[in-house]
Amino acid sequence: MYRTHTCGELRLSHLGQEVTLAGWVQRLRKMGGMTFVDLRDRYGITQLVFDQGLQADLAEQANHLGREYVIQVQGVVRERESKNAKIATGDIEMVVNKLTLLNESALPPFTIEDKTDGGDDLRMQYRYLDLRRPCVRQNLELRHKLAFETRRYLDSQNFLEIETPFLIKSTPEGARDFVVPSRMNPGQFYALPQSPQQFKQLLMVAGFDRYFQIVKCFRDEDLRADRQPEFTQIDCEMSYADQEDVIQMFEGLMKHLFKTLKNIEFEGDFPRMTWEDAMKYYGSDKPDIRFGMKFVELKDLLPEGNFQVFDNAPYVGGICVPGCASYSRKQIDQLTDFVKRSQIGAQGLIWIKKDEQGQIKSSIDKFYTPEVIAALVERFGAANGDLMLIMCGQMRKTQKQLCALRLEVAEQLGLRNPSVYAPLWVVDFPLFEWDEETQRFYATHHPFTMPNPEDIPLLDSDQGKVRSWAYDCVINGVELGGGSVRIHDSELQARMFKLLGFTEEKALAQFGCIINAFKYGAPPHAGLAFGLDRIVSMFAELDSIRDCIAFPKNNAGRDVMIDAPSNIDDAQLEELCLTIQLPESK
Amino acid sequence: MYRTHTCGELRLSHLGQEVTLAGWVQRLRKMGGMTFVDLRDRYGITQLVFDQGLQADLAEQANHLGREYVIQVQGVVRERESKNAKIATGDIEMVVNKLTLLNESALPPFTIEDKTDGGDDLRMQYRYLDLRRPCVRQNLELRHKLAFETRRYLDSQNFLEIETPFLIKSTPEGARDFVVPSRMNPGQFYALPQSPQQFKQLLMVAGFDRYFQIVKCFRDEDLRADRQPEFTQIDCEMSYADQEDVIQMFEGLMKHLFKTLKNIEFEGDFPRMTWEDAMKYYGSDKPDIRFGMKFVELKDLLPEGNFQVFDNAPYVGGICVPGCASYSRKQIDQLTDFVKRSQIGAQGLIWIKKDEQGQIKSSIDKFYTPEVIAALVERFGAANGDLMLIMCGQMRKTQKQLCALRLEVAEQLGLRNPSVYAPLWVVDFPLFEWDEETQRFYATHHPFTMPNPEDIPLLDSDQGKVRSWAYDCVINGVELGGGSVRIHDSELQARMFKLLGFTEEKALAQFGCIINAFKYGAPPHAGLAFGLDRIVSMFAELDSIRDCIAFPKNNAGRDVMIDAPSNIDDAQLEELCLTIQLPESK
Repeated sequence: MYRTHTCGELRLSHLGQEVTLAGWVQRLRKMGGMTFVDLRDRYGITQLVFDQGLQADLAEQANHLGREYVIQVQGVVRERESKNAKIATGDIEMVVNKLTLLNESALPPFTIEDKTDGGDDLRMQYRYLDLRRPCVRQNLELRHKLAFETRRYLDSQNFLEIETPFLIKSTPEGARDFVVPSRMNPGQFYALPQSPQQFKQLLMVAGFDRYFQIVKCFRDEDLRADRQPEFTQIDCEMSYADQEDVIQMFEGLMKHLFKTLKNIEFEGDFPRMTWEDAMKYYGSDKPDIRFGMKFVELKDLLPEGNFQVFDNAPYVGGICVPGCASYSRKQIDQLTDFVKRSQIGAQGLIWIKKDEQGQIKSSIDKFYTPEVIAALVERFGAANGDLMLIMCGQMRKTQKQLCALRLEVAEQLGLRNPSVYAPLWVVDFPLFEWDEETQRFYATHHPFTMPNPEDIPLLDSDQGKVRSWAYDCVINGVELGGGSVRIHDSELQARMFKLLGFTEEKALAQFGCIINAFKYGAPPHAGLAFGLDRIVSMFAELDSIRDCIAFPKNNAGRDVMIDAPSNIDDAQLEELCLTIQLPESK
Repeated sequence: MYRTHTCGELRLSHLGQEVTLAGWVQRLRKMGGMTFVDLRDRYGITQLVFDQGLQADLAEQANHLGREYVIQVQGVVRERESKNAKIATGDIEMVVNKLTLLNESALPPFTIEDKTDGGDDLRMQYRYLDLRRPCVRQNLELRHKLAFETRRYLDSQNFLEIETPFLIKSTPEGARDFVVPSRMNPGQFYALPQSPQQFKQLLMVAGFDRYFQIVKCFRDEDLRADRQPEFTQIDCEMSYADQEDVIQMFEGLMKHLFKTLKNIEFEGDFPRMTWEDAMKYYGSDKPDIRFGMKFVELKDLLPEGNFQVFDNAPYVGGICVPGCASYSRKQIDQLTDFVKRSQIGAQGLIWIKKDEQGQIKSSIDKFYTPEVIAALVERFGAANGDLMLIMCGQMRKTQKQLCALRLEVAEQLGLRNPSVYAPLWVVDFPLFEWDEETQRFYATHHPFTMPNPEDIPLLDSDQGKVRSWAYDCVINGVELGGGSVRIHDSELQARMFKLLGFTEEKALAQFGCIINAFKYGAPPHAGLAFGLDRIVSMFAELDSIRDCIAFPKNNAGRDVMIDAPSNIDDAQLEELCLTIQLPESK
């Protein structure tokens, strides 16, 4: 037995007790003939005292301890003279009478403190030291609790956690699969799942009624910021359930998590918004509704022939920024530069100010009569002191640009407080998405998504208008999860495949198993999946999902700590019947 | 909303209520103007009644339902005339007043009953139908509960579940890795983890103190019976813990699982046995101690020059089978044939009988004096009516053969009752294993296993004798889990690598990350891993782990349901810079 207590455990109630602790040396101070050591473990920090007068040898031994040395100490708990209210063990200290060195430590390449001197790359290379920092450790503790509470809630709702296979079949549709060569079936490959979608639907066919799984998924994508090649989903599916059942159930899960982990309670139901409204008022399918500044459409108020830029634009819209009429020319120029950045790609920014006295001034005064401008201001519902910002162009494109502007302004105004949570369900997603490049429709979610029965007549006539029974759970502008009611009717499913350009052969080759399964009494079913990494980073108020993953990969998909991926033996390649052919010029 | 209740929910307390159910048609019977339908879901079966006299149309509709059709019914709960005590809803039935067909079903290829007419291959191909059978469903329900209770126990003991990566670095040592080509790092590969061994040790270095994870692991082995290329581990590690701490903690877990899932309580501690004794008395490192028949060694009692077979054998040992002196010549011949099978490879079997009257007879009467035979019988401690079976040869080889014989006899005598559980810790495993083929020592477990400090002086002189601080949890002859105290001292670790034939370069190439990590204050730590599949199949009293896995693979590593592995697109291969070269003759 290495210890009787942890470093976070001792209190005044332990006074006089002989105890044994083990942990890491966080800090060592010599003061007035005394040596103080802060001993750290996962549970806290305990102050150790060595008296150079009374125990010269022991104190001398302590004086040679370095940062991050691992020690075991025996001693007696006593009350501190100067208490430390900041730590749970701050009332006591331990007078050491035996010190055992368990392991030495080389000098760490950065300080093991919340505010460390280590840069990102260095910390990732020595992730096992980075993880010792309390702020990083706490993220993983939160992750554990969140996963555990998720399981507790779903178990209480009769969900069964069922493991689905990792070595599955590759489906060329969608994002790229990671593949795994099979030695026992030479020339053939498994794929790692992008999600257990088909398996969870098969489990519904199998009668499991309520399934969930907290499960790793894999996508071989070019990694944008905050994407990981492997990520974790809370994957769920319910039988005999409609959209309302699923939304109620998983709103319940989110409320349970907020209550148990953050002690936050929401009054009433989460608001809901159609995808159409989300685009119209926020320019995004994941609007941040912690604050207002909904889009206002202006095109109908603008007489033609005055201002060519607006005349040529099918869409003119803007936001009303409260209290910012006093923005300087420079501030507005900065916003204009922001929307002109290539990532956003706007042509420019029009402004109208209504100052504290109600006086109106704008960058389009010379193009329009004061009456027109006044009508715009009225449409905005602007109060004295407000700033209106207007953009124009193609509708969807401009809405997206306005969305970026709205978020930027909110950021500047401090309206995106990470401790405030504004949840939302976005519903009525379009079933199909038009792809300009290939000039065809694709499934917005996946080919198993149920069209809204009201819109089934539009399937052949006006695909773009067909709404689906799909829904996303959005909080603070982040899509935390989403799902849909699935098609359980073979004929409708066949029709969907056809609409998505699958020949019967191709559909069978890719989805044969589920197509067959649906012949044997598939129940109506619906489900969704949450991104666990995203929920944890939102709860931990992190900027990146990377900080809540124990061993993340970098943007090149590399684990720099273990140095993976790496080369493998020729013998192993030979067993797999593979040869590598690198492109000649690189 | 598809239903107000499930098919397992209605009781007499619901009499007269208007309810809605949904589920699968299990069975349909017409009797005396009535149509009875058994409606099934995961939760149970409810009897539906249609009166052909009162509701002719509805009954007609019901009469057209086929097996496994999916329906929704509205109706009123009433008391049954003839109750069915075998099912929880057996007191009531539902008089249907509305029937909605939700989905049809083709005729299933086998009956959806515990006793099905479907063969193994067919059931695997249609696994989603096989899973509808209550006996299979119950295995997965048990698996869910077992995983959940494991998490509940470990959470209560301050363990954190931490996800470790799936895309890691290949290590040529040990079993074969599955590898994953990296598109973003052409020519390089990730490996799928055989276990998170190095990561959990890094988490101890990182100060997480108590880690666990229920996690998929992967091994590209030629599949023997009851092995799966992907399997699930309960993987655990503790800091500042010695062997005793780990054994206590996980004996606690096993007791918790037995109590909560099987309502079985064990008195006192699980027994412990050294590896040496396990081999000596049971010929196995995972002895089944539900019954006796410990090995008895006889060599010293046998004078030389009488019986060449024994004279030439360095080891002579046997078991005493209680009450089987009456075995016929034929029965003993069958046992002899059993041990002579090539899988066991014994030369023969010697027997001694002590009949009910105490008369002794044996197959070696002509070689030894009655006094020698009597001495053997005494050593066996045989009672009247017992049968003694003796084998000889090289010690370890013969012990293994005796082990097979002991288990076979116990099987025949019905001593291997799957509802009886006899747990055991096997300790003091040898640190090294001699490999005849390569004529060198290998690590019995892995290179991080701590040698018993008492035996460290033997490391250079007598490697084979060095005991390790490694332990297995064995129940009923099955190794459910095992682990070890790990080396936390860099120097000892370096010495181990050297003893195992690693050059410094090779050790660094394979284990560089952990070798470096250990420089920064590695705490003493120890851990273990349980095979979840094995625990579940033992708790469910199954013959094969396959039955407790939702979507298992067959012995060729194939998922016959989804047809994986399969060929992938040339384009995908090209992106991965790979070409396939199948061996020409196959």
